[in-house]
Amino acid sequence: MVEPHQTNVVLVGKKDIMNYVLAAIRLFNDGAEEVIIRARGMNICKAVDVAENIKNLFMKNTEVAGVEIYSEELEDPKGKKKRVSAIEIKLVKKQ
Amino acid sequence: MVEPHQTNVVLVGKKDIMNYVLAAIRLFNDGAEEVIIRARGMNICKAVDVAENIKNLFMKNTEVAGVEIYSEELEDPKGKKKRVSAIEIKLVKKQ
Repeated sequence: MVEPHQTNVVLVGKKDIMNYVLAAIRLFNDGAEEVIIRARGMNICKAVDVAENIKNLFMKNTEVAGVEIYSEELEDPKGKKKRVSAIEIKLVKKQ
Repeated sequence: MVEPHQTNVVLVGKKDIMNYVLAAIRLFNDGAEEVIIRARGMNICKAVDVAENIKNLFMKNTEVAGVEIYSEELEDPKGKKKRVSAIEIKLVKKQ
């Protein structure tokens, strides 16, 4: 897992998929050699779509260097702990 | 990617997550050294939950040996082609 505030991370949430695709493309265009696509729970599917869209359609010079799945323990507003699955997809520029 | 009809594959679909958790546990108990959890589209999140549940709660002697994401081209009933993201999670018994 990467550091939480690393600047080349795209955290996939509720917005439309293209927001995250564009965010990642911008990071690559700003000089990033790798970009991490990260998501939790129901957004995991969207994160996979984001990565597949980038490498197959928008930036064919990128590839998936690794995928990691893990669980995070979150606290809901009532203080109850809950385990949530998460994913990290590492996209890199092809050498 | 593994062969489509390999017997140690759990294809995650619309059923409740526990169906797939149990299917994977049964494969391990029948002697499988590795089990592939596979899913497409919206079921990708469920596949990650299945894998995390197995290794964190039900079979702590298993671990994720690799995760792969890819795209499949499917034809809808009208013959129109559509790209769908997919995931394969390889669970293995710890050595």
